[in-house]
Amino acid sequence: MPHPIRIVPIGGLGEVGKNMLCVEYGNDIVVIDAGLMFPKQEMLGIDLVLPDISYLTANAERVRAILITHGHEDHTGALPYVLRELNVPIYAPPLAHDLIEVKLRQHRIGEYELHEVDAGSTLDFGTVHAEYFRVCHSIPDACGIALRTPAGLIVHTGDFKIDHTPADGRPTDLQRLAELGSEGVLLLLSDSTYAEVPGYTPSESVVASALDHVIADAPGRVLIATFASLIARVQQVLDAAVKHGRKVALAGRSMVDNVNIAVANGYLKAPPGMLLDLQALSALPHEQQVIVLTGAQGEPLSVLSRVANNANRDIEVHENDTVVISATAIPGNETVIATVVDNLTRRGARVLTRRTSPGVHVPGHGSQEELKLMLRLIKPRYFVPVHGEYRMLAAHADLAMQTDIAPANVFILEDGDVLELDEAGAELVEPIQAGHVYVDGLRTWDVGEAVLRDRRMLSRDGFVVVVVPVDHATGKVYGEPEIVSSGFTAPAEAEELMERAAAVVIEALRAPNLDPLNEDHVNDRVREALSRFLYRETRSRPMIITVPLEV
Amino acid sequence: MPHPIRIVPIGGLGEVGKNMLCVEYGNDIVVIDAGLMFPKQEMLGIDLVLPDISYLTANAERVRAILITHGHEDHTGALPYVLRELNVPIYAPPLAHDLIEVKLRQHRIGEYELHEVDAGSTLDFGTVHAEYFRVCHSIPDACGIALRTPAGLIVHTGDFKIDHTPADGRPTDLQRLAELGSEGVLLLLSDSTYAEVPGYTPSESVVASALDHVIADAPGRVLIATFASLIARVQQVLDAAVKHGRKVALAGRSMVDNVNIAVANGYLKAPPGMLLDLQALSALPHEQQVIVLTGAQGEPLSVLSRVANNANRDIEVHENDTVVISATAIPGNETVIATVVDNLTRRGARVLTRRTSPGVHVPGHGSQEELKLMLRLIKPRYFVPVHGEYRMLAAHADLAMQTDIAPANVFILEDGDVLELDEAGAELVEPIQAGHVYVDGLRTWDVGEAVLRDRRMLSRDGFVVVVVPVDHATGKVYGEPEIVSSGFTAPAEAEELMERAAAVVIEALRAPNLDPLNEDHVNDRVREALSRFLYRETRSRPMIITVPLEV
Repeated sequence: MPHPIRIVPIGGLGEVGKNMLCVEYGNDIVVIDAGLMFPKQEMLGIDLVLPDISYLTANAERVRAILITHGHEDHTGALPYVLRELNVPIYAPPLAHDLIEVKLRQHRIGEYELHEVDAGSTLDFGTVHAEYFRVCHSIPDACGIALRTPAGLIVHTGDFKIDHTPADGRPTDLQRLAELGSEGVLLLLSDSTYAEVPGYTPSESVVASALDHVIADAPGRVLIATFASLIARVQQVLDAAVKHGRKVALAGRSMVDNVNIAVANGYLKAPPGMLLDLQALSALPHEQQVIVLTGAQGEPLSVLSRVANNANRDIEVHENDTVVISATAIPGNETVIATVVDNLTRRGARVLTRRTSPGVHVPGHGSQEELKLMLRLIKPRYFVPVHGEYRMLAAHADLAMQTDIAPANVFILEDGDVLELDEAGAELVEPIQAGHVYVDGLRTWDVGEAVLRDRRMLSRDGFVVVVVPVDHATGKVYGEPEIVSSGFTAPAEAEELMERAAAVVIEALRAPNLDPLNEDHVNDRVREALSRFLYRETRSRPMIITVPLEV
Repeated sequence: MPHPIRIVPIGGLGEVGKNMLCVEYGNDIVVIDAGLMFPKQEMLGIDLVLPDISYLTANAERVRAILITHGHEDHTGALPYVLRELNVPIYAPPLAHDLIEVKLRQHRIGEYELHEVDAGSTLDFGTVHAEYFRVCHSIPDACGIALRTPAGLIVHTGDFKIDHTPADGRPTDLQRLAELGSEGVLLLLSDSTYAEVPGYTPSESVVASALDHVIADAPGRVLIATFASLIARVQQVLDAAVKHGRKVALAGRSMVDNVNIAVANGYLKAPPGMLLDLQALSALPHEQQVIVLTGAQGEPLSVLSRVANNANRDIEVHENDTVVISATAIPGNETVIATVVDNLTRRGARVLTRRTSPGVHVPGHGSQEELKLMLRLIKPRYFVPVHGEYRMLAAHADLAMQTDIAPANVFILEDGDVLELDEAGAELVEPIQAGHVYVDGLRTWDVGEAVLRDRRMLSRDGFVVVVVPVDHATGKVYGEPEIVSSGFTAPAEAEELMERAAAVVIEALRAPNLDPLNEDHVNDRVREALSRFLYRETRSRPMIITVPLEV
């Protein structure tokens, strides 16, 4: 009996990050990507966000494989966590394969099955057949995946742009996309990250030429901050450095690690003697130095931030230095990046960013004209935009309708929504559980909202703790309460205010209608009285916690 | 004996907001603007930031006046606080005058001297003579100020753009600027907010035409969110609504207040019956409705955010509604605005922002070509860029050198720096105290850094409070400690972890080498043991506070 195909997005739909999506046919589940998300501003103190994979663990016996499209963290970063709960085979293109291997070793994941595949590879998982095809993105070896099922052909683009002159010389495979389109595609799942941006995303070759000019013209050292995974960018810097008689050093652990992997596997071509360590480089005249470093997002602990604060042991910024930030600000990072630029400028450096010098970076995602080209090449019956916040998915849905996909066949899904479809039709069915799993230090929380709510409250007005001594024998409150607070008052006013607060608590404890034996009652009355007093005095509402201490 | 002129920036140099700058000659201090700053992301729980005016209070008898350039909060918002400490005359152009009056009434400032001036007004303050001249900005009645002193002529642009077709028909007074330039200007102080932006800022007339098209084409209601002070924008909406047979209602207290002031004083021309209240408007067919509302910066409590969350009593967003966000995101607000757009899109609205539809807003600050035009018109001997973060001031300094100001005569000052200059030369002298005064509820803190540091720590990992009972008679610790925490653990793990933490504290208290009579010693040992335990278990470092309770 034929089944419908089920599309089950676990992460990355309605958000940017933690991309993970299941395609199901009958008894077979194939998972595409397993990414993490970097915490949003309001996720206070959180280190990482993972997809909630309870749907997969509940259906573990049906999960055939995780297919990785490329080596970015938002597509691979959840693997160490997922593998602890679900040991399934992983397939990944060569560079992603190598990066994943390093990551799993760092996480001490011992037993796993990781296979290298590449554009053109085909794989069989029961009733589902997968085929990898080449796309361009901001990391080498990026692929999309075509999935053949008895109910029809599905194409998932992965992250992509259509770059006719990419840095690695391997353009998006338009021929294969066109062939798939001719064959007849039931459903296209396509990257929406830049669906709001009109026109075309410029080619990587624009950056090569911009960096070449920067390095040629710089009067002193050149520091270039970019993503550690942007191997193409490092290649462009190396090429320009060779051409203009400079040497290159790396700074930042992930940059050193990734470049080493890339050199070892032939993704990066550096003539012998071109890559020096920082110390060797610093012996050269300034006008022969280039440093490639991490911190393009203004991360406070990164090399670039430390350099900007003059807090890095190895690199000090001088007048005449040129600093290039070769990246697009991830939303929410704009102000920390601006602070880094301010501080570098204060030290006399000339700072070039994408805002002031558009050529120094191009994004890895296709803009509207590229997305429309993809839609026209694949001409699917159904369309589901993937990878993006809701407004991006909605913008991509609009593009699909503009390219003649029937509006009724365009579905905007968010994480947990389930779409069942076949030749006869498509419909949304019962959703599954999906959401955020927070990583904070060593801990992972699938229900972290309570902690985050407390942190938000603490971040605004701090806290006041009132310790109320209770007689061990009688259960009655007695003696003087003790009050401590933090994040609430400035030192100048603290003593006087807390003394008056103590008087308010004592008065509440002495109220004639107080039942001293009823702990909840006592706590409530103390909190109410104190909260009222503090709000009247300050118009702030610190978190108030009472601690009855039996003595 | 001749004096040098002293330029003393108190706020707004090296930051965006709280603009305030002194020009001194001999015994006379004239202050230009007295603004507030909206808190930056890292200023947790802070409501407003004010300039530190201790330099002015220390020199109160020399302060002649505060001259306001225009009615925006970042130029006027500190007045209610300043006037409590320093009662000096204020001069302001008509609309700013009216807005300040409302603000002072709200703050119950009874005694003050507020004068209305306008472009062309001249004022004498001892040795310093002031003249107001017209500039364009995103609020009516914006002015720059020329200050004549015995040591030379100073021109302060205020916030400005050079709009040849402004909404109110009153362009920047190029003739007067040229005359001042011919007369010979010693020093130009010029707005740097957009000094990083190449080219020209488009005219307000671009927005008029864009909004006209939006309102003409919208299939249903149109909601337009903008700044309450952007009276020109409200006029454009009214004009388009009249043309296309729609009526307009306002939502948001500051929008209603400002529009009322503007209508009463003739800044806003609304034909009778055009402005309705929300209820009357809602009785009309959707295609005859326009609502102008606050919340263009995604402020969580604003009308627009509530509408997006379906939490506003009066306005519910429907499919077919068009929402226009007619504003530029203030850095740091990008992600909250994006969330508002996502939520509106989820409800079926079509959302237009400056990113996707550049015509729906233009900024009020001049871009590089306008700044260069100002420099060429005034052709000053010395140049100090004002109003901007460091990188903007540095970019503006570059523009000055490009327009033939001698590099040695261009000074990048930050708040508190003092420049002394006259025809003979200019030099930086001893700086004054300047910085942030934080407003949190009813409290103002000039040393709020300690509170903010605590809030940052609490926002990341929460806190743990340990209450240690101490025998009142002997001073020795005894009995069981009590531990409470918040913002640290998730409920699922809290109980077990806190039980083990209590055991760690008990063990620390029982250590053979502990001196139970030494309170500091006891506290230190408890904190150390607990901190080590919690870090080992969680890799987090909550704030740990010990409370010895005498019983």
